[in-house]
Amino acid sequence: MHFHDTQRKVDYVLAYHYRKRGVHHGSPAHSLAVISNGETGKDRHAGGPGDIELGPLDALEEERREQREEFESNLMAAGLELEKDLESKSQGSVFVRIHAPWQVLAREAEFLKIKVPTKKMYEIKAGGSITKKLNTVLQKLSVPLQPRVPEHSNNRMKSLSYPFSREKMYLYNIQEKDTFFDSATRSRIVHEILKRTACSRANNTMGINSLIANNIYEAAYPLHDGEYDSAGEDMNDRKLLYQEWARYGVFYKFQPIDLIRKYFGEKIGLYFAWLGLYTSFLIPSSIIGVIVFLYGCATIEEDIPSKEMCDQQNAFTMCPLCDKSCDYWNLSSACRTARASHLFDNPATVFFSIFMALWATMFLENWKRLQMRLGYFWDLTGIEEEEEHSRPEYETRVREKMLKENDKSVVQKLETNATEGGDDGGDDEDKLTWKDRFPGYLMSFASILFMIALTFSIVFGVIVYRITTAAALSLNKATRSNVRVTVTATAVIINLVVILILDEIYGAVAKWLTKIEVPKTEQTFEERLILKAFLLKFVNAYSPIFYVAFFKGRFVGRPGSYVYVFDGYRMEECAPGGCLMELCIQLSIIMLGKQLIQNNIFEIGVPKLKKLFRKLKDETEPGEADPEHSKPPEQWDLDYSLEPYTGLTPEYMEMIIQFGFVTLFVASFPLAPVFALLNNVIEVRLDAKKFVTELRRPDAVRTKDIGIWFDILSGIGKFSVIINAFVIAVTSDFIPRLVYQYSYSHNGTLHGFVNHTLSFFNVSQLKEGTQPENSQFDQEVQFCRFKDYREPPWAPNPYEFSKQYWSVLSARLAFVIIFQNLVMFLSVLVDWMIPDIPTDISDQIKKEKSLLVDFFLKEEHEKLRLTDEPAQRSQGGGDSSRRSQSGAASSAPSALSPPGSRASSGSQHTNL
Amino acid sequence: MHFHDTQRKVDYVLAYHYRKRGVHHGSPAHSLAVISNGETGKDRHAGGPGDIELGPLDALEEERREQREEFESNLMAAGLELEKDLESKSQGSVFVRIHAPWQVLAREAEFLKIKVPTKKMYEIKAGGSITKKLNTVLQKLSVPLQPRVPEHSNNRMKSLSYPFSREKMYLYNIQEKDTFFDSATRSRIVHEILKRTACSRANNTMGINSLIANNIYEAAYPLHDGEYDSAGEDMNDRKLLYQEWARYGVFYKFQPIDLIRKYFGEKIGLYFAWLGLYTSFLIPSSIIGVIVFLYGCATIEEDIPSKEMCDQQNAFTMCPLCDKSCDYWNLSSACRTARASHLFDNPATVFFSIFMALWATMFLENWKRLQMRLGYFWDLTGIEEEEEHSRPEYETRVREKMLKENDKSVVQKLETNATEGGDDGGDDEDKLTWKDRFPGYLMSFASILFMIALTFSIVFGVIVYRITTAAALSLNKATRSNVRVTVTATAVIINLVVILILDEIYGAVAKWLTKIEVPKTEQTFEERLILKAFLLKFVNAYSPIFYVAFFKGRFVGRPGSYVYVFDGYRMEECAPGGCLMELCIQLSIIMLGKQLIQNNIFEIGVPKLKKLFRKLKDETEPGEADPEHSKPPEQWDLDYSLEPYTGLTPEYMEMIIQFGFVTLFVASFPLAPVFALLNNVIEVRLDAKKFVTELRRPDAVRTKDIGIWFDILSGIGKFSVIINAFVIAVTSDFIPRLVYQYSYSHNGTLHGFVNHTLSFFNVSQLKEGTQPENSQFDQEVQFCRFKDYREPPWAPNPYEFSKQYWSVLSARLAFVIIFQNLVMFLSVLVDWMIPDIPTDISDQIKKEKSLLVDFFLKEEHEKLRLTDEPAQRSQGGGDSSRRSQSGAASSAPSALSPPGSRASSGSQHTNL
Repeated sequence: MHFHDTQRKVDYVLAYHYRKRGVHHGSPAHSLAVISNGETGKDRHAGGPGDIELGPLDALEEERREQREEFESNLMAAGLELEKDLESKSQGSVFVRIHAPWQVLAREAEFLKIKVPTKKMYEIKAGGSITKKLNTVLQKLSVPLQPRVPEHSNNRMKSLSYPFSREKMYLYNIQEKDTFFDSATRSRIVHEILKRTACSRANNTMGINSLIANNIYEAAYPLHDGEYDSAGEDMNDRKLLYQEWARYGVFYKFQPIDLIRKYFGEKIGLYFAWLGLYTSFLIPSSIIGVIVFLYGCATIEEDIPSKEMCDQQNAFTMCPLCDKSCDYWNLSSACRTARASHLFDNPATVFFSIFMALWATMFLENWKRLQMRLGYFWDLTGIEEEEEHSRPEYETRVREKMLKENDKSVVQKLETNATEGGDDGGDDEDKLTWKDRFPGYLMSFASILFMIALTFSIVFGVIVYRITTAAALSLNKATRSNVRVTVTATAVIINLVVILILDEIYGAVAKWLTKIEVPKTEQTFEERLILKAFLLKFVNAYSPIFYVAFFKGRFVGRPGSYVYVFDGYRMEECAPGGCLMELCIQLSIIMLGKQLIQNNIFEIGVPKLKKLFRKLKDETEPGEADPEHSKPPEQWDLDYSLEPYTGLTPEYMEMIIQFGFVTLFVASFPLAPVFALLNNVIEVRLDAKKFVTELRRPDAVRTKDIGIWFDILSGIGKFSVIINAFVIAVTSDFIPRLVYQYSYSHNGTLHGFVNHTLSFFNVSQLKEGTQPENSQFDQEVQFCRFKDYREPPWAPNPYEFSKQYWSVLSARLAFVIIFQNLVMFLSVLVDWMIPDIPTDISDQIKKEKSLLVDFFLKEEHEKLRLTDEPAQRSQGGGDSSRRSQSGAASSAPSALSPPGSRASSGSQHTNL
Repeated sequence: MHFHDTQRKVDYVLAYHYRKRGVHHGSPAHSLAVISNGETGKDRHAGGPGDIELGPLDALEEERREQREEFESNLMAAGLELEKDLESKSQGSVFVRIHAPWQVLAREAEFLKIKVPTKKMYEIKAGGSITKKLNTVLQKLSVPLQPRVPEHSNNRMKSLSYPFSREKMYLYNIQEKDTFFDSATRSRIVHEILKRTACSRANNTMGINSLIANNIYEAAYPLHDGEYDSAGEDMNDRKLLYQEWARYGVFYKFQPIDLIRKYFGEKIGLYFAWLGLYTSFLIPSSIIGVIVFLYGCATIEEDIPSKEMCDQQNAFTMCPLCDKSCDYWNLSSACRTARASHLFDNPATVFFSIFMALWATMFLENWKRLQMRLGYFWDLTGIEEEEEHSRPEYETRVREKMLKENDKSVVQKLETNATEGGDDGGDDEDKLTWKDRFPGYLMSFASILFMIALTFSIVFGVIVYRITTAAALSLNKATRSNVRVTVTATAVIINLVVILILDEIYGAVAKWLTKIEVPKTEQTFEERLILKAFLLKFVNAYSPIFYVAFFKGRFVGRPGSYVYVFDGYRMEECAPGGCLMELCIQLSIIMLGKQLIQNNIFEIGVPKLKKLFRKLKDETEPGEADPEHSKPPEQWDLDYSLEPYTGLTPEYMEMIIQFGFVTLFVASFPLAPVFALLNNVIEVRLDAKKFVTELRRPDAVRTKDIGIWFDILSGIGKFSVIINAFVIAVTSDFIPRLVYQYSYSHNGTLHGFVNHTLSFFNVSQLKEGTQPENSQFDQEVQFCRFKDYREPPWAPNPYEFSKQYWSVLSARLAFVIIFQNLVMFLSVLVDWMIPDIPTDISDQIKKEKSLLVDFFLKEEHEKLRLTDEPAQRSQGGGDSSRRSQSGAASSAPSALSPPGSRASSGSQHTNL
């Protein structure tokens, strides 16, 4: 964890692999070459690897070595201190350990405007007395749920924070310079320098990322705090996180968000905070979802339409479901599906889907609030977006373009620009114009269209599979009885498998396409990747569901003029209970299957396999340096063997797709939140475990929000309103029932509803060759019935849509308009009613500001009094005279204020 | 403009009125009592008004005087310099002139984080070479449109800005301390101190606003830069603004936004920038609106339905329009209205309303971009919300509440709080809880409901007027011919007058209600006032229009079972051409009338009247001090006689209501943008004139955006989508025509449409006593026709809604859903496609940041080199040793860097 002097902490590690090196320094006393930052120039050449004689290296390796040397010397020029082991063997890994001394930390903290606590503490107001009492009670009740993490004890006081400034050092409570900045901040500062440092040899590239992309370094990572499973009492943050957070055993506890943030940085902290909030928001919706489901179960006996359908006495003779081989059938034979569909198609689901639309709004609003709250406690208020460097790929492309233009003056311009600040070019030539990017964009666009077309055609393929299989099975008498179940089940499983496979492929394709586009910065890269991946995965996961919800059974035609997909095969119809039942099956299998398989196989299985594979590989490779391996491995060796951190995109993506399942079709599957909840309780710990035990420590990234994900979430939330409106209006039988009850029913009940929804068809009008062969139906059939609102055969315009059809359609559409606008209005109202910034936090922020002004004014007065005292005592006349020349008559440099004034302003506990 | 020493600039003026004062110092040599800020305590008592013997003052006046004295001494303690004339007469106005010396300005600028230009200049990148050329051409073309204002010459360079810091004085280009901060910034700083300074005598109130509210001071205002209409060459900003902006003669020119901002501050600058953008956005929509209107005119001859209606041969016999006195009539008699309504009811209006919905989105997006651009050039990026003080009314209420509780300890707590920072109380007792506010909220809520009910009942009253007048007029044969025109015209005028009167009343009521609610800060006060006023004025202006658009003619019933408002008076019907025509008349008269009358009478006439009235009043009052008036009045006298500035709310409100007219019902009145444009061209100059010539100079307020107005605008934009969808679907005949054309027409044309829309009624079924008396219709009538889709008398279910009715209704509703979602989707797309921050600006901001880091790093290296040079020369050993103790080893106080290093970093022109 430290340099060999056991004093200086290792803040960052660069790893590279070297080979074919002549061993010149064999003596173990010299195997450590410390490069320190004393007097820059000469010192390095004395002790560094520069003076080692060169062996017969190949040119590339030599080039890389020189680039590394230049980069490292630039790092030292920036004030960092480096240490590395000598390259003593013919090949092997070298770890360059980097330590940031106090001067560097202080300087960079000032540039980065890192807020640090000042001496001034203040109490956080806990609201009114009732709120306070309630909070105390709640806190006592939740004690077993709280993780046992030290920070939680004193969360009533908060230090006033102020961006670090070396001129105002007296403000801060600096007890020990080595520990003033925590390890995440230290590594962030070093990473910032690494990103900024140029290497002119390596084609003027900026920063460590380009060097890693060019294989000059292999990896760059900050160190973990220690072992997470070490025995003994010595506690480090990683071990604490493991014990209190990253185990399944603590699944019922709150997450120690502050500690996560301290250890992994704000970006990952926000992810887990978001995941936690989402999971806890799933609890109420799960409960209500279960209640809605139970309501369906409880009222199943009172449902008049399903009773009517099951009534054997009053059976309706239905038209055959397929040509020739299918017979007329009794509606009562579909009794079971009708009863089952009542579970999901009852008035309670309408209210549940309104509830869920508002729930989504509430969730987003509360997330905004939590984000603000965390931003306040983590001192993120007022931070600005960080400056971003170009991606290495972008720089390479720009260089290639310039080389192509083959213009000497342009190259010169690049060089001057590079010395001025790297990526800021003044003209078209040194950046990619629209013309350069066009092929990439076109490719992207075409590929996405192709992918979407592929998804649709697979969905269509599954439809054809269903139609043909159903037809084939109904030929066989033995299988005829459960055709529908077999076909539906197999088709959904095919869908699921296709979705899972395409999901992986699309993820890779999206990455590849985004690379082709060559976005300039890491952030635009991420955003575009996310958008593409989201679009593809969304279409992939939801297109079969959309088909079932809105298209299935709508293009069947009518008896006598059916629509045929291809010769002899009719378009598929919905089950007699309505398509909602099928939608529900589809949804539940895809959602559950996706979660179970992706969680178990991809998230748990694949990493384990990878580990196993790497272990095997390591064993097969000749263990060259056994004597060295015998001593306990250093932390950087251990961390090097972990997987590198690759970003939060997959984690977010999984959750967002799940959020879609929970909100989009909630009208048809009220149990979705329950399954999501169960999954997420595991997911939190799974992700936690991954971050704590399986990944290298990520760079601490400071960020205020979750970025584009929030927009996607709120987009899904808005989209879900219209989707649910259509599911209720079009897919479910809710509206036809209402219309029947209030317009056509004689006694205001649903008696006669089933009869009302079935039209008559004159069997004699069936087309030649489509009549059932060998009809074994027990009665003479003159009219068969089919589900549609059409004029009867005896009307003047038979089989046209009847007035009922149009009035039901009007009602459906009116419902969509009312539902959509009502829910949107309510959402806006909720959005408006709940302030984005919690009032207590906004109060605190205001207080903090006025406290800060007071604090400064006090310092000011203190200083003024001192300078005004006429004698000016023994302060050195030369000094004060120079000061008065400097133009700031009253602004004494802060370092001049004597210890007395500092003591008077230090550590005040103000009661707000 | 200056103190009597002609050196120190007057930055702010406090005015108060005194009376009944014994005149003791008669000598003119002493009539000026200069209070300077030398040594605070004693000096004041020597020269100030404190040593004047007290005459027989009444207690209140004495109390006020003491409060003023305390306040002024507190101001001086804060470093401000004051000057005032002696209170030499028995009564009169005294002006306290305030000057902020450099130290105070520097200190406050640091606290307020005011960004000031540094020495470093850089060129603003003008985009690619094509864009550059285009810009040059555009600039040349627009030369006559550009105001001749000096700043515009060098807008290619921008100084790097950085928050003012006294420790980094060397960064800034301070040539003369007196002019480094411009007058708006100076007055802002003084205003900030005035707001912050406490006065413990006046019940611990904070700031000047409370003192003005308690009548201790009468007014507080910064000074104008001089006369706007002075003769001669001497130019000041006010005069420049008057000549280049605030005259009707320059109506065609762009606004000098930068100068406006410099003179009036960011808030007012943003208002005029917004108004300018809005006005320029009205130009394209006006053009397209006129084209749409002309398209209507051009196609009027080809419109088949109106031709059919005018066809005398094929006349339809219509049912009578009222009971008894009305006769049957020929549809061809309504030929003219049918033709006129085609002007506004044609397919082009559908596209126009889609266009306008996108236009609104585009406008808002472009405003966001302009706001960002201005924010960049005005150095507003990264400013935080300013700290806000409680409103005086709020403080009074809190004090009253505490007095009522009559608890000694609580009062004590107030006092400790007051010394600590004023309004931050730690407990429930010293702030208003929900319980305290409840009566206010209830009152507010009830009043708003009452007002809305009042508006609705007035609308209903006008309806009743229309019905009864129409009935009365149709009794008389002479007036019968133009009943409809007379009734409509008079009713609309009544509506207009009511709207204008209620508008004023509602404005006052909203203010009163907001006062009752006692919001804490000025900002919440403004927001609540705006919301209330907007709600009331919106309902007031639009409810008659909504009635005509969506309700008129929909509750008529049908012949034989009409709906009666009250005995004998049927609900009113629309004209045979459809309600759209009437909607159009209503809209145009209300919009035009409102603009003309409010602009002319309220904005021009009333201020003139007020001025006249005050002049008259001044003349009637005994002019006591004529000899003093003879000398030329000082600027503070002149400004005192102007109207005080009362905020931008009315200006914004007027424009927002107009925005509503332009977007909400644009489907029915495509000429609205033209009239809005004409109005706004005048409005800009009218407002400008008011600000430059008629108002006291407002305090310069720094703000990043237009606040709640943006939300209201975007809310109207969203609302307009659904309103337009309904206008097209429900009010216009667009959908029925489409349905007829594609479903019922025999040859795909509209021939027979009129017949299709008219139902039959068997005259014999008219209720007893409602048949036309003395029918003079020229043929025997068996069936009369009426406009509705109902079953004919010979159908099995006569007069029920026919299948056509339901299919047309379905089509209407489907159109609403498609239109709404399509337009919303397009808006989101436009929103997403246009980045909120213009790319060039976001590039510049990034560049600025990296330039800033470079600039600092260079300074840093410079300093490091100096401190590292071993000799440490003659810098005074005591100083440097103390510095190393202070903990910031490498942070030499900035004042120490010698002139050499400063010169090297000064005034670099970097080419980005």
